[in-house]
Amino acid sequence: MWLGLDLVEEADASTLRRLFTIWTDDAAALMSGRGPLADTEPEMAAVTAGLTITFGVGPGVFDLTGITADRPGWLRPLPAFPSIDQLEERWRGTDLVVQICADSPLTVAHAQWVLLKDARSLARIVWCQKGFREAVGTEVPGRSMRNLFGQVDGTVNPAAGQDDPVVWMCASAPDWLRGGTSMVLRRIAMNLSTWEQADSVSRELALGRTQATGAPLTGQVEHDVPDLQATDAIGLPVIDTFSHVRRSMPHEHGGVDRFLRRPYTYDEGPSAHALSDAGLLFVAFQADLERQFLPVQRRLAEADRLNAWTTPVGSAVYAIPRGVREGEVLAEGLWR
Amino acid sequence: MWLGLDLVEEADASTLRRLFTIWTDDAAALMSGRGPLADTEPEMAAVTAGLTITFGVGPGVFDLTGITADRPGWLRPLPAFPSIDQLEERWRGTDLVVQICADSPLTVAHAQWVLLKDARSLARIVWCQKGFREAVGTEVPGRSMRNLFGQVDGTVNPAAGQDDPVVWMCASAPDWLRGGTSMVLRRIAMNLSTWEQADSVSRELALGRTQATGAPLTGQVEHDVPDLQATDAIGLPVIDTFSHVRRSMPHEHGGVDRFLRRPYTYDEGPSAHALSDAGLLFVAFQADLERQFLPVQRRLAEADRLNAWTTPVGSAVYAIPRGVREGEVLAEGLWR
Ligand code: HEM
Ligand code: HEM
Repeated sequence: MWLGLDLVEEADASTLRRLFTIWTDDAAALMSGRGPLADTEPEMAAVTAGLTITFGVGPGVFDLTGITADRPGWLRPLPAFPSIDQLEERWRGTDLVVQICADSPLTVAHAQWVLLKDARSLARIVWCQKGFREAVGTEVPGRSMRNLFGQVDGTVNPAAGQDDPVVWMCASAPDWLRGGTSMVLRRIAMNLSTWEQADSVSRELALGRTQATGAPLTGQVEHDVPDLQATDAIGLPVIDTFSHVRRSMPHEHGGVDRFLRRPYTYDEGPSAHALSDAGLLFVAFQADLERQFLPVQRRLAEADRLNAWTTPVGSAVYAIPRGVREGEVLAEGLWR
Repeated sequence: MWLGLDLVEEADASTLRRLFTIWTDDAAALMSGRGPLADTEPEMAAVTAGLTITFGVGPGVFDLTGITADRPGWLRPLPAFPSIDQLEERWRGTDLVVQICADSPLTVAHAQWVLLKDARSLARIVWCQKGFREAVGTEVPGRSMRNLFGQVDGTVNPAAGQDDPVVWMCASAPDWLRGGTSMVLRRIAMNLSTWEQADSVSRELALGRTQATGAPLTGQVEHDVPDLQATDAIGLPVIDTFSHVRRSMPHEHGGVDRFLRRPYTYDEGPSAHALSDAGLLFVAFQADLERQFLPVQRRLAEADRLNAWTTPVGSAVYAIPRGVREGEVLAEGLWR
């Protein structure tokens, strides 16, 4: 679950300090299975179900509080991509984001409630976006998640260990972000009705991989490396020039434009207006948003067969401060 | 996930037959891990995650199609309970309901999409209600689920095996319901903000059980039998006269009014208007709605301390036809 919040209007650096002091305590208590200090349902915190809580700072924090030191240049909304975007104001970027992940929806619901009520005098909710992946115990071993198009999604991804410079910011970042990262959150609607009409040839052409196993069209199994040189009987590339994977992969384009994708499926269910309201909460983490993420997003906006069925309806960018040691407060470099 | 649907306006008995013929096939295929015939994402059906699909028929089906034979007398909206109800039109009873349950949200999302698109010319969606329980693998062994009040919920329930007459209708039911059951679906908002203000004494008094373990106030562990005679130092009953469990339990009131409760938590998350929109999808199954369910609901509407924090906002009643053997169609007795 992602919570998008705006600071109260009169917020200043001390508001931020108070908020992150509370949230640091809450998150530590919830993630360790203790209830936070003022929690009236400590029992609810007992089942952590792998709970992780991630906090992010949006550009509005700087505009509002007047903090100017250490503002990263990249921390601003993504440029518009008029060829694909149909952004809705209700999914706009916010001052703050809280990402709450766990293996059980009950744990997520409780953590969300605690974090939100403890913040209520300091920040107000703008939106709440919910996504899911395959539940623990229902994954197919060795295979990435499927999205609602039935595609195997998540195959090519950096290892993203603790020191991977693809994800984590290094010494040259402002102090509060050293060891942190940047997050792009795009809400991308997937049109299940038109996708349903597409035959499997068009689908696989659009992606460059098979539906059944996620293998590249030039390979047999999911993790086979795509052969970009391979051509078919009439000399056309097997992995189409405008296929999603060819357009998004780094090694055709220099190679620095890699990042960690961690998408979740959203499904608001049908309504009287539409048979479905579903898609991806597309989440990308990278050390350098401008050099790693943006080139790929630009290429995909320019040409990507998959765009025929997908529409970005929300977009937000956040700076994710590094995690803290006992006694530290999240993001504290920001107001010090 | 519950889908509430209305038949198209021009529907007659043959519409119903076509719809249930399709749904019977779809459900059998999805539950067995094959994709249904026209499914363009057979891969998505492969992970069944314990999928079950349950179909129900609401009163509107009879009103609309003119089918009169075998209409059960109890199949109508619950009476109004003005002391507690704040029903919203958007959660009204519908002609049909589909309940889709699985251990993975991805499986539910796919099944819902298939069932809905295959029905699109015959029925239209009115609402979609989503609920959850603790995820598989995160339950505490031997303890019932917790709801968002932190209460252990689901302790006292009939065993509901295949032949339990508490749940399944017997020979005296109309043919299409023999072996079937009735379902009450109440959407009950739970006010987390005011509950948070209540101290633990008031909370436990209101329920008659402890928060920590779900044990009756007169016992030690969850499944201890409440001692209704026990009094405290000043002679008041330990399990209060107006506590939820005392008001709802059958053995103070004759004993036939038992049913199977299978509640799910819903949590629509916070919005700009409210810090939370959460509660129970309260689901009850019983052979005889009027003798088993209604007396309890009446007693609780009359007096139940828990009502201070809960508000029914939706209400619906459905007849659940029995399951089918190979070659049969769900609910077929209805149009034959
Ligand atoms: C609803 C929208 C999208 C869908 C359904 C989708 C789906 C997929 C699928 C199925 C794959 C192949 C398997 C894999 O490696 O994970 C893939 C790969 C990839 N996608 Fe997307 N994607 C979407 C949006 C995006 C966006 C917005 C970006 C970046 C701006 C992106 C970047 C990538 C990258 C970098 C790869 C790996 C390419 C490689 O190196 O092979 N995708 N996507
Ligand atoms: C949001 C609303 C409700 C909440 C939070 C709630 C909560 C609970 C809890 C925590 C228990 C004790 C543990 C257990 O035996 O499961 C309980 C018991 C029970 N509740 Fe509710 N309940 C709600 C609404 C209802 C409604 C609407 C009915 C029926 C009309 C109902 C009928 C019962 C019954 C029959 C029992 C078992 C009593 C016994 O025999 O000990 N509840 N409920």
